[in-house]
Amino acid sequence: MPLFSSRISLVQLVTLTSDFGIADGYVAAMKGVLLSIAPQARLVDLSHHIPPQDVRRAAFLLSTVIPFFPPATVHLAVVDPGVGTGRRAIAVQTPQATFVGPDNGLFTYVLSEAREWAAVELANPDYRLPHLSDTFHGRDLFAPAAAHLALGAPLQTLGPPVVAPVELPVPRLEIAPDRLEGEVLHVDRFGNLITSLGRLRWEGKRLALSPAFRRDLPPLSLPAAEAQVEIAGRALLGIRRTYGEVGVGDLLALVGSHGFLELALRQGSAADTLSVRPGEGVTVRAIMTPTAGGMAWKS
Amino acid sequence: MPLFSSRISLVQLVTLTSDFGIADGYVAAMKGVLLSIAPQARLVDLSHHIPPQDVRRAAFLLSTVIPFFPPATVHLAVVDPGVGTGRRAIAVQTPQATFVGPDNGLFTYVLSEAREWAAVELANPDYRLPHLSDTFHGRDLFAPAAAHLALGAPLQTLGPPVVAPVELPVPRLEIAPDRLEGEVLHVDRFGNLITSLGRLRWEGKRLALSPAFRRDLPPLSLPAAEAQVEIAGRALLGIRRTYGEVGVGDLLALVGSHGFLELALRQGSAADTLSVRPGEGVTVRAIMTPTAGGMAWKS
Amino acid sequence: MPLFSSRISLVQLVTLTSDFGIADGYVAAMKGVLLSIAPQARLVDLSHHIPPQDVRRAAFLLSTVIPFFPPATVHLAVVDPGVGTGRRAIAVQTPQATFVGPDNGLFTYVLSEAREWAAVELANPDYRLPHLSDTFHGRDLFAPAAAHLALGAPLQTLGPPVVAPVELPVPRLEIAPDRLEGEVLHVDRFGNLITSLGRLRWEGKRLALSPAFRRDLPPLSLPAAEAQVEIAGRALLGIRRTYGEVGVGDLLALVGSHGFLELALRQGSAADTLSVRPGEGVTVRAIMTPTAGGMAWKS
Repeated sequence: MPLFSSRISLVQLVTLTSDFGIADGYVAAMKGVLLSIAPQARLVDLSHHIPPQDVRRAAFLLSTVIPFFPPATVHLAVVDPGVGTGRRAIAVQTPQATFVGPDNGLFTYVLSEAREWAAVELANPDYRLPHLSDTFHGRDLFAPAAAHLALGAPLQTLGPPVVAPVELPVPRLEIAPDRLEGEVLHVDRFGNLITSLGRLRWEGKRLALSPAFRRDLPPLSLPAAEAQVEIAGRALLGIRRTYGEVGVGDLLALVGSHGFLELALRQGSAADTLSVRPGEGVTVRAIMTPTAGGMAWKS
Repeated sequence: MPLFSSRISLVQLVTLTSDFGIADGYVAAMKGVLLSIAPQARLVDLSHHIPPQDVRRAAFLLSTVIPFFPPATVHLAVVDPGVGTGRRAIAVQTPQATFVGPDNGLFTYVLSEAREWAAVELANPDYRLPHLSDTFHGRDLFAPAAAHLALGAPLQTLGPPVVAPVELPVPRLEIAPDRLEGEVLHVDRFGNLITSLGRLRWEGKRLALSPAFRRDLPPLSLPAAEAQVEIAGRALLGIRRTYGEVGVGDLLALVGSHGFLELALRQGSAADTLSVRPGEGVTVRAIMTPTAGGMAWKS
Repeated sequence: MPLFSSRISLVQLVTLTSDFGIADGYVAAMKGVLLSIAPQARLVDLSHHIPPQDVRRAAFLLSTVIPFFPPATVHLAVVDPGVGTGRRAIAVQTPQATFVGPDNGLFTYVLSEAREWAAVELANPDYRLPHLSDTFHGRDLFAPAAAHLALGAPLQTLGPPVVAPVELPVPRLEIAPDRLEGEVLHVDRFGNLITSLGRLRWEGKRLALSPAFRRDLPPLSLPAAEAQVEIAGRALLGIRRTYGEVGVGDLLALVGSHGFLELALRQGSAADTLSVRPGEGVTVRAIMTPTAGGMAWKS
């Protein structure tokens, strides 16, 4: 079990992700617990508007945001439909960060991109509140563990190793010589459709594809201008660099800020215009060219 | 008037609660004022999504969240339908925390659970902005007072003592030998119905009831499995420990994370299914057994 | 080009304003970048609920909130419909604060009230992430620049001077001897209508008007009780000091906390009752009296 022990930093940074919303006091209670144990911790909200119990959405959010945080950051994530059942509580460390939450697949995507990792079950009662409720482990179990990890507690003191954390199915990505098949992963506030076709990176006029979350698929290259993107009965010619390449109100396909293919409508909502939701299929038709080595996606 | 003077801590923690929402700049203006006076203060939002002018909702939120914050925390709460009228502005200290806000009952529930407390009227002009607007005391009066208290200003320097702060009616809780009567206090983001029947704590297979916010009612004990919970024409047998004890989509009664009886629907919304709102009556039928001493609710 | 170089403070305060919402990870990614570069920075959200691409709304928000922040604060604002087009990226310093964002008018109102200012284009690649995406300059360009400015980087190191930043049209304000003409700028969470008629300040029973964002208009004085406020076919007699002067459910005109004339409904929503939106005209009929000197609006 690899361990990343030299994690103590001058700034104890803890992020919070949940499906609790911010109207009730659930997030605030977790912050109170964090600051009671680690008064110097700096707290940053990633999102508390994960749709209720949508573990997959939270897993994707974590995978897109955590590369931009300092490596010693502790990421607390609580989307926990199984609270009070037998599901395990875990902490995971990668070279990138430390994660704390229920063992239900929340960390699938970050683990799939980690060179190495270590995980433990949060079994040690010293790292919990004295009274563990049956319904709010975010406050009673996960927040205390995250606070102690931020203070520098070694991972292995929190409990025994976990060999195989629960994994979600990976987002759809199929590669054929003449096309890519994927799905809409997420619709953002602007109505942009973020798809599973990634990660893409510009190389001159071509796009290099390093399949996200998939070590079993080869890296590829495809021509951007000739690619045809199909979704919901519509076909768009070409993958663009920016919104400015099309007129106001026009649909376009481009490489979004997460490195995934996105469908967008300039100064409008592609989701409203196309009436699609997460899960909708998307196809890119183009001649795929194998490339020599894998391409690491780095911020 | 008891005073808790040794309140200076290395971390100056100030929480904010309001009905301002977070789209407008009202909360931001308060934070600017807080940080102008106390640049080292750490700010934590409890909630800014209190329904407009719903003092009771804010009072309940404070009572459930503040036990999880460090004792030297200053809690700034601004739900203030009476701004610009004669209502007083106050600061209150308990062994648990310091509170700042309008004297309209916001602190009723935290005071009802405090062993002792002291309150002052915010009459000293040295602890305000130079220009006091008629409509935004959160920014001009309450935020400066909270910042100075976080910096260690003694409570009594802010103004003269307040003997009897305004109190809200306590939530409905009636105890009969064969039943408890209460009401729905709050519906959370998940559609869980948090009721006034609390605080409850598991003691083996029984539930110990320590009436919340009520020193006039005796502690009790009741059998969990035989209790019948009635709401909106529905009856549920048994109070459960966790969601996992019922099937997906089934209603259940359980002890929520605040220690109050909750009605929930596993992986769904009890509020939608039952079509109930705050104020709806709820009854628990069971044989009540008096218990010897009171039970303090501690986090 | 005036420069305000002695800006280094013990607290590195950075505020964030955007139209990103808080459900997606966009704001979180910017915070990760800020804290990776400036680990000690203190982050405060002004608002992330600017309506998508509503530059004017963000400009108004900044103008009302930033006077309450300490002068060394860096304000990062990203409402950026032109991302990926030729629009410039800029940083601006005034005696009041430092601003970072796209050059699309976001800083119009703060610049119109600044005694002096300096601006640069963010052309220096040392103050960006290594990979600059085409669609998310908030993360890749603006957040790094804001972090370096918070760390004390001199403004001129970030790029060449900008002489004429893009300016928005100023909000409507016309002055006649017997009336003021303006418009609704913004509807807040409570349904209050904030108008362009300001800034107003009480002087006994009269109101002093110092035209906001307009150096070309003279200061005036008008009698409050005799003024008639007209909007959406309704006329209200008198400008009030507080909500408490009218009955619950009654409409009133008053000087809002930003110093602008507001239409409000006591314990209700003026916007719902009047069915008006931003842009709606508003007139104040009263005898205007010229006053000798300009009146600076200070918090």
